[in-house]
Amino acid sequence: MTFAIHGLAVARGIAIGRAVLLAASHLDVAHYFIQPEQVPAEIERVRNGRNAVVQELQRLQVEMPPDAPAELTALLDVHLMLLQDETLVAGIKHWISERLYNAEWALVTQLEVISRQFDEMEDDYLRERKADLEQVVERILRYMKGVASPVAAPPPPAPTAAGQQELLPGDGTDVPLVLVANDLAPADLLQFKQSVFAGFVTDVGGKTSHTAIVARSMDIPAVVGARAASQLVRQDDWVIIDGDAGVLIVDPSPIILAEYGFRQRQIELERERLIRLRHTPAVTIDGHKVELLANIEQPADAAAAVRAGAVGVGLFRTEFLFMGKGSHLPGEEEQYQAYRQVIEGMQGLPVTIRTIDVGADKPLEKGHKDDHLNPALGLRAIRWSLADPVMFRTQLRAVLRAAAHGRVNLLFPMIAHVSEIHQALAQVDLARAELDARGVAYGPVRLGAMIEVPAAALLARRFLHYFDYLSIGTNDLIQYALAIDRADESVAHLYDPLHPAVLRLVADVIAAGAELGKSVSVCGEVAGDVAMTRLLLGLGLRSFSMHPAQILAVKQELLRADTRKLVPWAQQVLESDDPAQAMEVLAMAQEKSASSY
Amino acid sequence: MTFAIHGLAVARGIAIGRAVLLAASHLDVAHYFIQPEQVPAEIERVRNGRNAVVQELQRLQVEMPPDAPAELTALLDVHLMLLQDETLVAGIKHWISERLYNAEWALVTQLEVISRQFDEMEDDYLRERKADLEQVVERILRYMKGVASPVAAPPPPAPTAAGQQELLPGDGTDVPLVLVANDLAPADLLQFKQSVFAGFVTDVGGKTSHTAIVARSMDIPAVVGARAASQLVRQDDWVIIDGDAGVLIVDPSPIILAEYGFRQRQIELERERLIRLRHTPAVTIDGHKVELLANIEQPADAAAAVRAGAVGVGLFRTEFLFMGKGSHLPGEEEQYQAYRQVIEGMQGLPVTIRTIDVGADKPLEKGHKDDHLNPALGLRAIRWSLADPVMFRTQLRAVLRAAAHGRVNLLFPMIAHVSEIHQALAQVDLARAELDARGVAYGPVRLGAMIEVPAAALLARRFLHYFDYLSIGTNDLIQYALAIDRADESVAHLYDPLHPAVLRLVADVIAAGAELGKSVSVCGEVAGDVAMTRLLLGLGLRSFSMHPAQILAVKQELLRADTRKLVPWAQQVLESDDPAQAMEVLAMAQEKSASSY
Repeated sequence: MTFAIHGLAVARGIAIGRAVLLAASHLDVAHYFIQPEQVPAEIERVRNGRNAVVQELQRLQVEMPPDAPAELTALLDVHLMLLQDETLVAGIKHWISERLYNAEWALVTQLEVISRQFDEMEDDYLRERKADLEQVVERILRYMKGVASPVAAPPPPAPTAAGQQELLPGDGTDVPLVLVANDLAPADLLQFKQSVFAGFVTDVGGKTSHTAIVARSMDIPAVVGARAASQLVRQDDWVIIDGDAGVLIVDPSPIILAEYGFRQRQIELERERLIRLRHTPAVTIDGHKVELLANIEQPADAAAAVRAGAVGVGLFRTEFLFMGKGSHLPGEEEQYQAYRQVIEGMQGLPVTIRTIDVGADKPLEKGHKDDHLNPALGLRAIRWSLADPVMFRTQLRAVLRAAAHGRVNLLFPMIAHVSEIHQALAQVDLARAELDARGVAYGPVRLGAMIEVPAAALLARRFLHYFDYLSIGTNDLIQYALAIDRADESVAHLYDPLHPAVLRLVADVIAAGAELGKSVSVCGEVAGDVAMTRLLLGLGLRSFSMHPAQILAVKQELLRADTRKLVPWAQQVLESDDPAQAMEVLAMAQEKSASSY
Repeated sequence: MTFAIHGLAVARGIAIGRAVLLAASHLDVAHYFIQPEQVPAEIERVRNGRNAVVQELQRLQVEMPPDAPAELTALLDVHLMLLQDETLVAGIKHWISERLYNAEWALVTQLEVISRQFDEMEDDYLRERKADLEQVVERILRYMKGVASPVAAPPPPAPTAAGQQELLPGDGTDVPLVLVANDLAPADLLQFKQSVFAGFVTDVGGKTSHTAIVARSMDIPAVVGARAASQLVRQDDWVIIDGDAGVLIVDPSPIILAEYGFRQRQIELERERLIRLRHTPAVTIDGHKVELLANIEQPADAAAAVRAGAVGVGLFRTEFLFMGKGSHLPGEEEQYQAYRQVIEGMQGLPVTIRTIDVGADKPLEKGHKDDHLNPALGLRAIRWSLADPVMFRTQLRAVLRAAAHGRVNLLFPMIAHVSEIHQALAQVDLARAELDARGVAYGPVRLGAMIEVPAAALLARRFLHYFDYLSIGTNDLIQYALAIDRADESVAHLYDPLHPAVLRLVADVIAAGAELGKSVSVCGEVAGDVAMTRLLLGLGLRSFSMHPAQILAVKQELLRADTRKLVPWAQQVLESDDPAQAMEVLAMAQEKSASSY
């Protein structure tokens, strides 16, 4: 029976496919399809993993320390039984041979199936025994990790989100898959960047959570905050993600399927229409030139930025480049090559490289997720870098060397204290000295700071004594100024870019830049939101950095804007008493200016 | 061998005693001493609990659902074995009969001992089996909860933190106990408020974490952020907490013991000396009257506030009153009685009652700790109240009724949006209407808002259109303005009340109040910090609210202050470039003014 789950719309578009449910702990296992002839080898791989665990447990029993509790041996016996369980073994074979899942995927899919059985038990004590099963499966996965798959992951399939003409439920492996999970870490998503999934749905998360940002950057439909979706949807259900409305439709009827197929094609047409603006200069009606820059995560994204008509990279989030590659950053040479690739990819346009913005809330690896109570308020971004100066200078040297190949802006995230400025700049000097000592060539960089902590926004004028430019990270700035976690759906309704205090902070930073003749850009989500374009122009902003996919729509908006009208109107919004009122003024004024064209 | 662990000094004083180690999950079990003659009954209580669990597991085996995995029965067999384990049974008997611990305490203490055995195992797989043991012990605890103890918890022992003359290690139960834990929730601490513990040490936490605040309010020595203390200290070790230096000394030598015994007596003398200031009016040298108010958590604290010479309660944290009493707040009548008790306890002095400030980071009960990633940025305080208007109005009606008995200020925590003001005030109107409809008497209240979110500080002037007064909660304000979790020791060094942006926000709010002729007080930690008294006076603050124990020291400070000198000097601090510099100016100026007296 068709039903719908409402969440938050975070990445636009329509995806139609079968649901794949994954527990949080198993998001990092590989997911790909094998060829039919590889089925026996893949089953063999699981069997070998299981046999290795059986031997390991038996060895542990033999070598049990004499002072160990006597019950341990008996416990291991039960675990040995779990490993041979018929439901587990038969299920894994099914997913491999019928669905052509790779071995790890089959293993965790079957674990999910059995877990549901446990979840449905009435007695909580029996339910908790699920943990024992999970532990033996983990053990098998760990063993398989060491053993290379005979089947390499195939190249990513062609995009499935758009352009599917005929979508009727079938049993083949050629239908798109939609990932449904309780939560996804940025690193998880990134690992799915070139994956089999045509869309994402998570139970938790807000509109501007990192998950949402990455989903947008992948330009794949996604719905977050779809409470309980991972419990209500069953493995293999047919689902539709309506990324525009923020709705997940489960088990759709043929009529609904046809309707959404039609909408998928419409979206594709709209995209094609905007492409015509690509080479149009970004100038307002009254002749103000506006800089439209791209936010990117990977060297490969540079191509998309150039294609979208970006005049540079306003934010290269270096941390995504290294996620999932281990607990340590790569060495100077590897980073240098990556930065150089971006710089060369931008063909002479400037590239703003932000130093690594990881920490407790954006760990490089899942295992490193700390148990800090409030990671967003913890050791992250510049704090994390300054706490590990050797790591930090490795990145700085790589950036400085890459700067020999093009125009580079170096950007420090989350600076809040003048002492942090002194420390960061001292590290840059030290990095230069280290390169000098080695006789390695490097280039000049413009130095800038992210304004994303309220204290920094309040000190923007002072910060500009030290920096060549500032970049306002509105996502975090709003989060801290309002004390709202943008990923927490219970307060997501209070996360408001139009809050008068937020607008005042943004306006003040823009004004400080104008006064001191230094450039200020906005690289948060609002920069790519067409509903905010006129307001930001009215506040004096002339540099916007956003996902490449948003650039043309924003350009269309600013081509119709007249800052002579927008400046006094923005002041009015700034002075209005509450966000709703500001919104209203905004809407009315938009109508008014629209009618004047 | 004597060794020391350095942490953060959060609650002053010296405690000397034996270490009691508690796992986080077992902090909420009762801890008290029984009488020797009660030993057999207490052992019987554990035995009954265990037998009940044995029967329960046997019943589960018999009634196993037919589709349950076959291994479940075998797993339960192992758990039945764990329940009969000799080490567990003998250990529990030891703690009850030798140490006179109550049954639950004995049970979790022995669980800790066995857990350590598991922790020391080389193979992580074997180590993880600890979970099975923990689960059966949990099951016993749950059964015992339903069965009333034949031994009531005895009245709290006389304060042990100070005044111990002869403290040499012994084996009796008459030596003070010091709690060592990884972490403590405010609810945990509160449950220890009238307990056997003479001091607290936790591995995690910052200087202004809630744990630290509660420890200070209990006036019991505490050290937080003592990394790994709960691993390095063994059950029953002799320890000294030096709450002034933030150091935990483990296994002290007799010389060190004697030194600290001496210091304990000195601290007691200093306290006695300040008591003489109790009836001195709080007026600066140049004749400015200053309001010194008390922060309290319990009706019983009103007495301490009056004794310390407070001229009112500036912050009654109502949430502490209800913590650990279940997942729902008590009804209107019970709340009314509690508020009335405070108001009458204050003998005509005004009482500021803050509506409940719970949420994901300060749960009413431990079990309710949500897994939100950043609880400090989540559904808490006024957000929590507005999300549950029935609960909120129950509290509002109780406050309004209590206001018939004395002067009451109603205070809303964490207001950040004008829409929240409208909603909160509408709820107050509705609560009045409900009382009118019932014909119940109530009194007038002054309405105020906490300023603890940066956005609120920036909108203080607008907020004052709606409120009679404002109260600056500097702890949270600093936390959000700097994006520093005050409980996270990895960034605690960046939590800085002297950050120029913080000072500017505080100064602006004070100035807004002065302009509009409305009162502004500070109720955060800085209000009770004598190092901050002069600066706050210089910024124009005339109302300070703090823990009763801090009032006399702050009074001593302001009696020596001359605002004619402090105002220009505070401006200088406000304009200085970084906190360190501000600090320096502060220190120099203090020296200068001290020499002028």
